[in-house]
Amino acid sequence: MSILSTPSFFPASRKRYVTGSRPDLLVPFREIMLSPTVDQQGRVTPNAPLQVYDTSGPYTDETLFETIDLSKGLAPLRSPWILERNDTETYGASKNLAPTKSKAANPLPVQEFENRPPLRARRGKRVTQLHYARKGIITPEMEFAAIREGINPEVVRQEIASGRAILPANINHPELEPMLIGKQFLVKINANIGNSAVLSSIEDEVEKMVWAIRWGADTIMDLSTGKNIHTTREWILRNAPVPVGTVPLYQALEKAGGQPENLSWELYRDTLIEQAEQGVDYFTVHAGLLLRYIPLTMNRVTGIVSRGGSIMASWCLTYHQENFLYTHFREICEIASAYDISLSLGDGLRPGSIADANDAAQMAELETLGELTKMAWEYDVQVMIEGPGHVPMHKIKENVDIQQDICQEAPFYTLGPLTTDIAPGYDHITSAIGAAMIGWFGTAMLCYVTPKEHLGLPNKHDVKEGVIAYKIAAHAADLAKGHPLAQAWDDAMSKARFEFRWHDQFHLSLDPERARDYHDEALPAEPAKTAHFCSMCGPKFCSMKISHELKGMVDNSQLADKSTPSPEDSLIETGLSQKAEEFKRSGSKMYT
Amino acid sequence: MSILSTPSFFPASRKRYVTGSRPDLLVPFREIMLSPTVDQQGRVTPNAPLQVYDTSGPYTDETLFETIDLSKGLAPLRSPWILERNDTETYGASKNLAPTKSKAANPLPVQEFENRPPLRARRGKRVTQLHYARKGIITPEMEFAAIREGINPEVVRQEIASGRAILPANINHPELEPMLIGKQFLVKINANIGNSAVLSSIEDEVEKMVWAIRWGADTIMDLSTGKNIHTTREWILRNAPVPVGTVPLYQALEKAGGQPENLSWELYRDTLIEQAEQGVDYFTVHAGLLLRYIPLTMNRVTGIVSRGGSIMASWCLTYHQENFLYTHFREICEIASAYDISLSLGDGLRPGSIADANDAAQMAELETLGELTKMAWEYDVQVMIEGPGHVPMHKIKENVDIQQDICQEAPFYTLGPLTTDIAPGYDHITSAIGAAMIGWFGTAMLCYVTPKEHLGLPNKHDVKEGVIAYKIAAHAADLAKGHPLAQAWDDAMSKARFEFRWHDQFHLSLDPERARDYHDEALPAEPAKTAHFCSMCGPKFCSMKISHELKGMVDNSQLADKSTPSPEDSLIETGLSQKAEEFKRSGSKMYT
Repeated sequence: MSILSTPSFFPASRKRYVTGSRPDLLVPFREIMLSPTVDQQGRVTPNAPLQVYDTSGPYTDETLFETIDLSKGLAPLRSPWILERNDTETYGASKNLAPTKSKAANPLPVQEFENRPPLRARRGKRVTQLHYARKGIITPEMEFAAIREGINPEVVRQEIASGRAILPANINHPELEPMLIGKQFLVKINANIGNSAVLSSIEDEVEKMVWAIRWGADTIMDLSTGKNIHTTREWILRNAPVPVGTVPLYQALEKAGGQPENLSWELYRDTLIEQAEQGVDYFTVHAGLLLRYIPLTMNRVTGIVSRGGSIMASWCLTYHQENFLYTHFREICEIASAYDISLSLGDGLRPGSIADANDAAQMAELETLGELTKMAWEYDVQVMIEGPGHVPMHKIKENVDIQQDICQEAPFYTLGPLTTDIAPGYDHITSAIGAAMIGWFGTAMLCYVTPKEHLGLPNKHDVKEGVIAYKIAAHAADLAKGHPLAQAWDDAMSKARFEFRWHDQFHLSLDPERARDYHDEALPAEPAKTAHFCSMCGPKFCSMKISHELKGMVDNSQLADKSTPSPEDSLIETGLSQKAEEFKRSGSKMYT
Repeated sequence: MSILSTPSFFPASRKRYVTGSRPDLLVPFREIMLSPTVDQQGRVTPNAPLQVYDTSGPYTDETLFETIDLSKGLAPLRSPWILERNDTETYGASKNLAPTKSKAANPLPVQEFENRPPLRARRGKRVTQLHYARKGIITPEMEFAAIREGINPEVVRQEIASGRAILPANINHPELEPMLIGKQFLVKINANIGNSAVLSSIEDEVEKMVWAIRWGADTIMDLSTGKNIHTTREWILRNAPVPVGTVPLYQALEKAGGQPENLSWELYRDTLIEQAEQGVDYFTVHAGLLLRYIPLTMNRVTGIVSRGGSIMASWCLTYHQENFLYTHFREICEIASAYDISLSLGDGLRPGSIADANDAAQMAELETLGELTKMAWEYDVQVMIEGPGHVPMHKIKENVDIQQDICQEAPFYTLGPLTTDIAPGYDHITSAIGAAMIGWFGTAMLCYVTPKEHLGLPNKHDVKEGVIAYKIAAHAADLAKGHPLAQAWDDAMSKARFEFRWHDQFHLSLDPERARDYHDEALPAEPAKTAHFCSMCGPKFCSMKISHELKGMVDNSQLADKSTPSPEDSLIETGLSQKAEEFKRSGSKMYT
């Protein structure tokens, strides 16, 4: 496979696994090695490696990389956990759900993968993490995710049981490394991939998935709408260590020949089951868009901008009937419950412009999403709620507050929001602003926006730009929420910066390659990587260098311990005078 | 000049001048031409051009471009206004302040420009905009800036008189197009340029200036620290239609051989006068960093990170004396008052990391900046206050609140702030998040951060990335503050988007070239520029296309006027049923 021919390991990093309460519970982290601190006297003090949350899966494990074969898929690490719960059964895959045969020339064949029959809940059983959590059971999945978060597994269980968090993990996606979406945990990000009718191949999409998780995407949504939807998804799922979400309506519409009026509940239901058997971890379902809300969008500047929303609105108007996703929502819950598919209640009426933010249509749909949340919980189905979109900064907080109130704290999952519409080509930035803020206010997962938003399908470069912008937003939110793991990362970077450990600064960056490349542009030589300045200010004007000289002076006096010195403090004055003399004698330089 | 050999006009835009109360008061705007709306019936409705604030100067005026000669400088449009106030005098430039002769080979000669002797206030006169404003005088500069902002000139005068806004405009910078920095006005952005001892030439810096204002920088700071400081600044000033700020300490330190202990008040004062005579519009002065505050930085993670702050701290410790910028602050004010130089009170103790945000050192200095603000106002000197830096989101607002309280609402001018430290290479994004928020909270001007921050000196590409990220932040803040001009821009974009006017979307973007290039990547053909879809979703899944079809149905019924329709409303039901039939009969397509 060309996409894995070149491994993409992080510099100075190694995969480390923390073993849980059972030997097959191995939780991956990335450990970033740091060089030692060398103080002014030449004393060497080691710096402990920084252990960071790792979404990248086996692809960044040097010991596993050679064994990866995309046509075989990743190891099904959850299989023993699922099977030993003894509440599932295998069965032959549903009829009429065979993979769409590829008609286009495509570099990836229609692959059968391991001949693993699908699992579903045995009759009368519920197999969702919410079900187990409510029963007081801490599953291996919960423990795995708890270790990743550095949080007590019982807290994880409680958050899931209360509906405040979800652990999306279809029993047919055993390759998954379990993770949590909930406001008590690290803010997560989702990367959308998927071909459109106009562009891109299966190989492109698998490559984008591996690429997106390499940079930190916590989940992937496969939004393919063109040919080969089934096969693209199969390849992605079998190779994805992260939860995969879809909008099943897109495939249903393909089956309906692209005509919303040809959609039906039965067609949609069969699509749900097809995707459930493949292992999709969460479904976006636009069940809150009701017939009576459609007129509320008519005076909007940008109408309905959700693809799923516009399709269902078209269906509703065509038949003048209520949205079949709403009228059949209990059946959707039954399916979701049988495979442990989380429902992501779509905001089909989200605003598509600053002008339409927080309007009546959006809020009306949100009320219905609250109703559906309670209904899903009756079936022990895990639920999160999707949110906008395009929102000016002063209207962001109320989106979270209202959602949390109406939906009883079910996790919020927002697209951006973009805080202005005037910068197409830079919407990863317009939306990272909103995403950081809404994450701080309590949104559990942020759906990324790439620089191509509104202009075209993102390529690999755009996926990376989008993921990094959203890692920044999520991390900034974690910091603002006071997450100790987040703070530790920043502190490690700041310490490396103050100590001129340039290599460590690169290694600690979200994008080590770019950090190094930028530094190399001016100062590529190896000695520059320990120099006490950079090309920005040059050696004479480096504030940190001067600051070290000052610190060296004052550190040995009593000053360092004084938090509120005053000019009257003669002890300090004396100390400073002495130090002033020493400083001058030393040529005002500690590092020469 | 190579840097102007290729004009860089915006597509579909023209420079338009609004004439004020006198014929020589010509206020530039950029007018973006829009194509007409064509509705479903083929009716054509023109869209009025969008007039936007324009910082780019004559360089984007097609009628003036050919006449620009960088070696002559721009036309001195303010000269008549300054001279007719009859409160200034010319004099021979101060001795010992001759330009540093360039020793390095440099493509730009030491240029004499127009032989224009410097101006200063006549004895006993004050020539600052604050002085005039307090006298009740609306100067041409105030009127010019008021027209740019779309605000009554008397409001501008009041804001300046109260100290809540400044209009930085040295009487020796007549090329300036006056602008305002104050929270009642559009949020402004500053771009730092300037060579370092390690990199870049005069030509590079002039090119960066023209480039930065082309993309929307409202002011420029020339932070040169290497050779040719005087000459670089002269070239920039004579060709800059925006205010130019400096940190005079940098040049003073060059004169002191790079040794802080060789600095003196006299050396610094002479540097102020040299730069005042050249026309620098605002000086960053680190006068609030007092000797007694230095120990407060000793336990910081990143010490002192302001270049000026670290230099002055070094001087203070060397001599164990109070900061000479503080002890001589009244003399600084006298100089500033004689040339109308605004003072930007530097935050030498700003935090350099998330860990150090809002600490005692920062707040102690801010108290002193409040004291200095009042002192400057005694001399009718215009003042703004510099702020951090590195601040997690939850600590941003209090920065503005405390500054506004302590400094009696003098304009706040912040660097970012960066909301996390872990993404070197992307600090335009980490800081655009903080900048947008702090702008919304009341900061008047945002100093940009480029992707190279912490890694190296920005090149032309980095300058553009930084400026655009900050235009986004400033504009998002304007929107959140409810500025009608900001909202009009977003609304024009959203309307163009919903109407599939792709060309207009490109033209309305902050970066028309990139928007078009991204769209071209997938769909370069001209018909795609009016197509009712893009490569992101393809034709079948375009929500806006479907939304139009829905809108077409409902628009002709009574539904559009109903804001709270209910399912019980039989009139609506009937309308919907009829429309459903029409929709099906039309093949569910309005656009084919």
